[in-house]
Amino acid sequence: MQTKTMTDKHLLGLKGMSESELESILDRAAYWEQYPQKVTQHLQGRFVANMFFENSTRTRFSFEVAEKRMGLEVLNFTAAVSSVQKGESIYDTVKTLESMGIDAGVIRLKPNGVLDELARHVRIPLINAGDGSNEHPTQALLDLYTMRKHFGAVRGLTVSIIGDIKHSRVARSNLWALGAMGARVKFCAPDAMQAPELAEYAPYVTMDEALQSDVVMMLRVQLERHEQGMLNSAEQYREGYGLTVERERKMKDHAIIMHPAPINRNVEIDDELVEHPRSKIFIQMSHGVPVRMAVIERSLT
Amino acid sequence: MQTKTMTDKHLLGLKGMSESELESILDRAAYWEQYPQKVTQHLQGRFVANMFFENSTRTRFSFEVAEKRMGLEVLNFTAAVSSVQKGESIYDTVKTLESMGIDAGVIRLKPNGVLDELARHVRIPLINAGDGSNEHPTQALLDLYTMRKHFGAVRGLTVSIIGDIKHSRVARSNLWALGAMGARVKFCAPDAMQAPELAEYAPYVTMDEALQSDVVMMLRVQLERHEQGMLNSAEQYREGYGLTVERERKMKDHAIIMHPAPINRNVEIDDELVEHPRSKIFIQMSHGVPVRMAVIERSLT
Amino acid sequence: MQTKTMTDKHLLGLKGMSESELESILDRAAYWEQYPQKVTQHLQGRFVANMFFENSTRTRFSFEVAEKRMGLEVLNFTAAVSSVQKGESIYDTVKTLESMGIDAGVIRLKPNGVLDELARHVRIPLINAGDGSNEHPTQALLDLYTMRKHFGAVRGLTVSIIGDIKHSRVARSNLWALGAMGARVKFCAPDAMQAPELAEYAPYVTMDEALQSDVVMMLRVQLERHEQGMLNSAEQYREGYGLTVERERKMKDHAIIMHPAPINRNVEIDDELVEHPRSKIFIQMSHGVPVRMAVIERSLT
Repeated sequence: MQTKTMTDKHLLGLKGMSESELESILDRAAYWEQYPQKVTQHLQGRFVANMFFENSTRTRFSFEVAEKRMGLEVLNFTAAVSSVQKGESIYDTVKTLESMGIDAGVIRLKPNGVLDELARHVRIPLINAGDGSNEHPTQALLDLYTMRKHFGAVRGLTVSIIGDIKHSRVARSNLWALGAMGARVKFCAPDAMQAPELAEYAPYVTMDEALQSDVVMMLRVQLERHEQGMLNSAEQYREGYGLTVERERKMKDHAIIMHPAPINRNVEIDDELVEHPRSKIFIQMSHGVPVRMAVIERSLT
Repeated sequence: MQTKTMTDKHLLGLKGMSESELESILDRAAYWEQYPQKVTQHLQGRFVANMFFENSTRTRFSFEVAEKRMGLEVLNFTAAVSSVQKGESIYDTVKTLESMGIDAGVIRLKPNGVLDELARHVRIPLINAGDGSNEHPTQALLDLYTMRKHFGAVRGLTVSIIGDIKHSRVARSNLWALGAMGARVKFCAPDAMQAPELAEYAPYVTMDEALQSDVVMMLRVQLERHEQGMLNSAEQYREGYGLTVERERKMKDHAIIMHPAPINRNVEIDDELVEHPRSKIFIQMSHGVPVRMAVIERSLT
Repeated sequence: MQTKTMTDKHLLGLKGMSESELESILDRAAYWEQYPQKVTQHLQGRFVANMFFENSTRTRFSFEVAEKRMGLEVLNFTAAVSSVQKGESIYDTVKTLESMGIDAGVIRLKPNGVLDELARHVRIPLINAGDGSNEHPTQALLDLYTMRKHFGAVRGLTVSIIGDIKHSRVARSNLWALGAMGARVKFCAPDAMQAPELAEYAPYVTMDEALQSDVVMMLRVQLERHEQGMLNSAEQYREGYGLTVERERKMKDHAIIMHPAPINRNVEIDDELVEHPRSKIFIQMSHGVPVRMAVIERSLT
């Protein structure tokens, strides 16, 4: 039996991960979703630190529920209430927690590229909870889990990802993982929100074409990131790229709506569609817990 | 045996709650106050989220101690460090936590009316930890518990509530519950702090008359809420409506002082009275824990 | 067998503590460092509150890990997200937590002198996690632990403490404890950072002389605390009082580098020295956990 290296225990991103490894994580998530007890003693007596150098509600809580269900002791670090304010670097914070005997770290970061550097210098497994515009692997895993559960398999699906591709770590993690699992990805975005370096992996299509997929995945738009111009209002964005009630009617009968949340209602998606029968939005969130249990288990066993 | 409906499991307010239900909560609080172990396994393996969309020290900690004493797994959400900053709505936050498998939610909110709306749309019991100027049921329950324990019964007592009635959820919850349990309520407040719509339930009386009750309950005053004028200084407020050392001497021999805290010392109550033999202020706080254990038990069993 | 008084259970500072008591805490820390299980049931069913009225990452987490390893239920209070904002005093906050049934409090405070006053008015043991410029006893204990473990004994060592002595609670706690344990302390600081009242306990020496000790302990410098003048830049500070790569070469062969962290890299210590073989900085942090386990055990048994 092979011994895992630290590289195998980190979860830094999904780029380069094989279909079989992705499937094995999803299988294990399915195991935990069915698990009869809510709180287990599976990883009892070990410590995990959630280190969020960027605010988050959903992701942090989803990890915390997953961790507590695995029996872990949990420490929550949020930069906004810590001495990062006094200039302590991200590296020193992670090394500090490692020194205190933490067994794994879940980490969210704003700057791109820092996570890989960190992973080379610490001796505990790190789980990426979102780094810059690079990757958000557990989000994509729960998206894959939701698709696989709904359609039976990911292979052969067509998935449209609509919105701010340029800044989206969710788009990137989904792109890599969907590709590995045999799905076809299409992007749809206004010019200012396109990532030209991704065009070789997925074509940019019109809204009308994007609606003709098995999965229509809307991204959260953050208009404040963009300069004034043709995108300068939520209403204009909605008209051009929002999933409106009218557009939903053009979707295929069996197609589903996804969104990583948090949602800007009536900007990228109409209020009436958030809890529409097609929408998997809150189901995605519920899948986040078993998926993260599987990811934590992978890092700690 | 009757099955509880979700409506029975929420604790949104005390308005309309029967004397027998109030008594049964207080009885159960007495059971937990006497319980020999500090931490029990009573609700082990279940999750509760404390969702505070408005800051609080006392109430949040009191719930957290109660929850941990019941063996629950606890998640703490405070709006100030979350993505509510990014515009996520209260509703979406509650639905998100529900999706993650939370079994109950303790919630504090600024806007009036939102809680009832939420309760109609979620499938988990919600416990009101203070909503706007509407209700603060667990505070009133611990006040009732303190009165019942001190005097033997609530029926027949006269309770004066002094201060900013207009904005006070504590005053309202006490008004409804004290009425149901057969106590008589008197209000005392400067004109700008009166709630005219409550005048049919309790008379507004002078300070001198308010001091002639079995219970003198002072409310926290927040002068910053009021426009400049006759209330524009803490000193003026204290002279007109504060419980000063001089006024305490006019109270009946057996009467007690209560305050929901946090206290503005030397504004609504003189510093010397906070830990005076008549004062139940810190005893009230200690009763908060068993009362909240009883409330949580009611929602989760 | 003697019964401990509350005074014995507080840990307010190390000033006046005997060598035997210091040694017994360090011995117990050694016991916990070797303890085979990470999480014990040693203090199960009891509550501790971490009350941080001043931000901290390292110290708060170190206490939290120690508390959870002892099996305690932990409440975390940080002033920045609490009703201290609404004017609730430190005293009322501590009394509030005491009323809720907390068994011990770990407390960090900005103002000097408040902690002694608090300790006289509460009935639970208080553990000082840093008060103003007065004391930081657990930091000094972990420093002593690190020295004792490295050199075999503290007695006879020479320890240089370099930096902002004037504002440093770390310097003071180390001064008292090192003296009691038979070490010799030397201070080195620019004029504006000297504490004249401590000159009778430890001489102020030059940087060159300070480097000739068994332990070179650098303090974090906070330049923003000082008026403009000869200390007005990080670069000037480094030139005068920083532990540079050049200065490290002048240290004795067997000497070690210490720093309480967080570190200002390239101000009081050069980046290359933080993880240098001489440096005990991250080892100090790892010792913080068993030392704090010992301190908590002392307060709660």
